Amino acid sequence: MFNLFSLKGGLANVQGFYCDGVNVGIKTNPANSGASDVDGDVAFIRSEVPCDITARFTSNKFQAAPIKHYLNYDKDFQTNFILMNAKNANAMTGEQGIKDIEDIFKELKKYQDIQNPIMSSTGVIGYRLNQEKITSAFSKFDYNAKESNKVARSIMTTDSFKKELAFKIKLDDGSSFNIAGICKGAGMINPAMATMLCFITTDANIPKADMEALLSEATEGSFNRISVDGDTSTNDSVMLLANKLSNAYHKEAFKKALNKITFELAMMILKDGEGATKMVAFEVNGAKTQEEARTASMALSNSLLVKTALFGEDPNWGRIASTIGASGIECDDSTLSIYYDNLLIYSNEHRELDKEREEKAYLIMKNSSFKVTCNLGIGEGSYTSYGCDLSYDYVKINAEYRT
Amino acid sequence: MFNLFSLKGGLANVQGFYCDGVNVGIKTNPANSGASDVDGDVAFIRSEVPCDITARFTSNKFQAAPIKHYLNYDKDFQTNFILMNAKNANAMTGEQGIKDIEDIFKELKKYQDIQNPIMSSTGVIGYRLNQEKITSAFSKFDYNAKESNKVARSIMTTDSFKKELAFKIKLDDGSSFNIAGICKGAGMINPAMATMLCFITTDANIPKADMEALLSEATEGSFNRISVDGDTSTNDSVMLLANKLSNAYHKEAFKKALNKITFELAMMILKDGEGATKMVAFEVNGAKTQEEARTASMALSNSLLVKTALFGEDPNWGRIASTIGASGIECDDSTLSIYYDNLLIYSNEHRELDKEREEKAYLIMKNSSFKVTCNLGIGEGSYTSYGCDLSYDYVKINAEYRT
Repeated sequence: MFNLFSLKGGLANVQGFYCDGVNVGIKTNPANSGASDVDGDVAFIRSEVPCDITARFTSNKFQAAPIKHYLNYDKDFQTNFILMNAKNANAMTGEQGIKDIEDIFKELKKYQDIQNPIMSSTGVIGYRLNQEKITSAFSKFDYNAKESNKVARSIMTTDSFKKELAFKIKLDDGSSFNIAGICKGAGMINPAMATMLCFITTDANIPKADMEALLSEATEGSFNRISVDGDTSTNDSVMLLANKLSNAYHKEAFKKALNKITFELAMMILKDGEGATKMVAFEVNGAKTQEEARTASMALSNSLLVKTALFGEDPNWGRIASTIGASGIECDDSTLSIYYDNLLIYSNEHRELDKEREEKAYLIMKNSSFKVTCNLGIGEGSYTSYGCDLSYDYVKINAEYRT
Repeated sequence: MFNLFSLKGGLANVQGFYCDGVNVGIKTNPANSGASDVDGDVAFIRSEVPCDITARFTSNKFQAAPIKHYLNYDKDFQTNFILMNAKNANAMTGEQGIKDIEDIFKELKKYQDIQNPIMSSTGVIGYRLNQEKITSAFSKFDYNAKESNKVARSIMTTDSFKKELAFKIKLDDGSSFNIAGICKGAGMINPAMATMLCFITTDANIPKADMEALLSEATEGSFNRISVDGDTSTNDSVMLLANKLSNAYHKEAFKKALNKITFELAMMILKDGEGATKMVAFEVNGAKTQEEARTASMALSNSLLVKTALFGEDPNWGRIASTIGASGIECDDSTLSIYYDNLLIYSNEHRELDKEREEKAYLIMKNSSFKVTCNLGIGEGSYTSYGCDLSYDYVKINAEYRT
């Protein structure tokens, strides 16, 4: 039917899209990252032809100004330009925050033919954008560049590595299309999205209705299933832009590629969870309903006691059980069983952890990733979420961020 | 009407109650506490006459064996004996856990005339009680002692100080009664109770119906409003025992004393929050309903990003706003205002924090306790919860606890 190939680099792989990032003095240190020089702080993605766009935004009631600005456009608007900045979220800035975006785009018009431009910001809440600095990028950008790497690095804040992916999909009729994504995110990651920005570009000839349905499904299976700290930011956005230039499309192939991109980017965010040393999949099955499985699974991903036990590599399954019991779902300790990978840790018949199984559990927990499975033994509901441990470094990063 | 006097010491002040605690080798180190010698690990409180008792238990579905054992008694049972142990929660131990309690009490009967005895346990989940060690306490106890201090120390786990309080209430007619409480708790503290045990004894001649109504109200105003880490344990219990020996009672006076005891014990737990360096009251008012105010207030007490900002003494109010926005309640950034103590930090007219107010905010945050007030400007709902910061030590204590 189709073949999917991984490509090196990110956004540069998609025809008709250009991108660049520059430093205008907003990021004055390498963004807590391992970068050896100063990264960009203002960046753009543009398409040579107008794109269809679909987006998923934060569930936070205090949506940041760039999101409000986006939502002012008509439902089926097309765009050819996204401008991004780091270190300032332009959130809680009121009407002024939206006006600042409009002023910035007035200036950008002097340099580029922009149509319904979109702004996307990440950083600290509660300060107006520095218009002077941001607009100073406009004469520095190379508007015909394909500098994916610079863009991916420009949107980093507490990220310790850039996150980008690209795939080529070859169809049986010999035609092909590409899809690529970049994202940022490391802390504040929670269901209903996270402090994350994600931009996915494609040249597939995808209908707008498919864009919406498939992005919604892909987000639910990826970014909505990861938790670093249970907080949900004002700026979270996932955007999918399609300029259709390849003229090729295959729904199943596109869906597979989009799900793969969003899932792998989500896992990169989790791996980069602030101070995280381990990734853990929390599978809850046998629940009364899928919703109950989700509640319990997310409670596990978010529990401080579970997260610190993971960091301590302590097979203290009591904290897992206690968290499920506290989550409010229907459960019974005589039908519950808990596994670490394939090792039975608890069941009605094996309530106490013997020395041998405890030793095996220690070995599993030493891995940088593993799976905790909780079978409630009640119904058919199942859900898997993905979490990470909580380390000293999480506290350090978040106590010191901003200051 | 009445006068309330603070008394030194704890449970020893209440007539007809006796208590003692001994070490039987379960606690082999001083319980992470600052204790200079080995504390007790098994303790009792008994009354010379049968007591009415009322209790509030954890909302965790996996209630520990001692709670199930308690709930097996008839609704209006009387008791004259509570046995306590630390370091083992006797939770997730199934029917065997309850049978172990019964066996322990069979042994205790050889030493004391016990009537409907109650067990209360705290510690690690998932292991059977060591019957041999626990019953070895029975020949060591002094059943006529009033060793409040030893009992308060015996139930400590990660607590760094013992928690006890007592009051004498003198009524206008010259009669008086006493009320005293001890509790343990330091982590896992959350609304709907916490990893905490609390025992309140009184010689007031209080009717059973008042005991239930007043304990319920007192718990809602105290233990249910504090959060250390948002987790809820399998063993949380608050018990009120009344032996009526004083023959004196005054409802308003008792209510005031009980509220004072539970609130002050709750604040002690918060102050002892694992690794906590600051206590913060989160008052949310002007919400659409009290329930919405409660949701937002508890979200603030539980937010990792707010807690780490408190630890970092960073007046990053954006995290406060973002947490309210993410809590799902009705809110609007144009009617919201945020204060640290009496300092206005954010309002529609003062969206950006100027240097002068930021300096003042730093000074407030350096205090070991202060208040954050969020006025939503929508309705009349208000609620205050109490939280603490999240420090490196929280991670250390919880990564290393048990192992």
